[in-house]
Amino acid sequence: MPPETLTPERILEATEDVLRRFGPAKATVVDVARALGVSHGSVYRHFPSKAALREAVTERWLDQSHAVLSRFARAQGPAPERLRGWLEALFAAKRAKAGDDPELFATYMVLVGENSEVVARHIDTMVRQVAHIIEEGVDKGELGLPADTDPLVAARAVWDATSRFHNPAHAAEWSAEHIRPAFDAVCALVLRGLAA
Amino acid sequence: MPPETLTPERILEATEDVLRRFGPAKATVVDVARALGVSHGSVYRHFPSKAALREAVTERWLDQSHAVLSRFARAQGPAPERLRGWLEALFAAKRAKAGDDPELFATYMVLVGENSEVVARHIDTMVRQVAHIIEEGVDKGELGLPADTDPLVAARAVWDATSRFHNPAHAAEWSAEHIRPAFDAVCALVLRGLAA
Repeated sequence: MPPETLTPERILEATEDVLRRFGPAKATVVDVARALGVSHGSVYRHFPSKAALREAVTERWLDQSHAVLSRFARAQGPAPERLRGWLEALFAAKRAKAGDDPELFATYMVLVGENSEVVARHIDTMVRQVAHIIEEGVDKGELGLPADTDPLVAARAVWDATSRFHNPAHAAEWSAEHIRPAFDAVCALVLRGLAA
Repeated sequence: MPPETLTPERILEATEDVLRRFGPAKATVVDVARALGVSHGSVYRHFPSKAALREAVTERWLDQSHAVLSRFARAQGPAPERLRGWLEALFAAKRAKAGDDPELFATYMVLVGENSEVVARHIDTMVRQVAHIIEEGVDKGELGLPADTDPLVAARAVWDATSRFHNPAHAAEWSAEHIRPAFDAVCALVLRGLAA
């Protein structure tokens, strides 16, 4: 049986395992290669440096919920409900990440701190999805923006106004009992702020 | 010349100095007493324990901008402008605290982490000020709330939606260049969400 092909995805999965086992300070490319039973040269063929590998694994983690979220962005139906659904899905994804595997979450917080460009790119993608929903909503008269407001600026305001429910700096609050009504109240305020 | 009377305020000022000099881990009541040239018994007469002293100094620090903020809460004039002014003043006060003396800010972050009840009380006061502005605005028809929305719930949503601009977890972002337009965009969204 021929050995399984070494794909970037397999390397990233192994990297996550190694990070989970050794922590972000100690994990090396050699550990990743060993976990895959390949030479570290084979890993470097896909990721030219340890930094590149850490960046890629961070991006993969941040983008994990893209598929779910972009479904709301591309869906049919009234824009206010889609935006609300998008915000719900984002909050649910973040809470799951923080709650299901707190140690891995802490590890990724270290990586996120190291890779500000990856984070900026991720936020950019998120904000563009929101802007897309807002634009469609405005076109159909389901949402409104003040004259000469850029949908991207409005979308960024939505992103910022909901920080408490997706920014990892607030992760400790996500298991609090009052977080659900707080989320609902902020969503209601934001949606009224975008009303037609 | 008789010695200056030992007031709680003088003790709290000395405590802040001691915290600044020794850091939150090492500062003791004896250090505070020594800085004031009094016995530690005299300090305990005002603050029965080290915990009580730390709590009081945290509260004093959190409440520093109350006077400025409550001026906006009690002012005459249109509610939307007062709310906007209140949010501006809060952001300015927080930024000044974080930027003028980052070490003291870090010290207070430790104390804030220790004194969740003091923090909850502080947030409660802040939210009540916002609720007061909203209620007056609604009464005068300058602001609007959906039927059966409690002004306190709406005020808490305003507080949460502006977290990025007052929650110390975001302090590192407050000196970024883009923070000003980001603040303006969130304020605009929030005020539209409260529009009559």
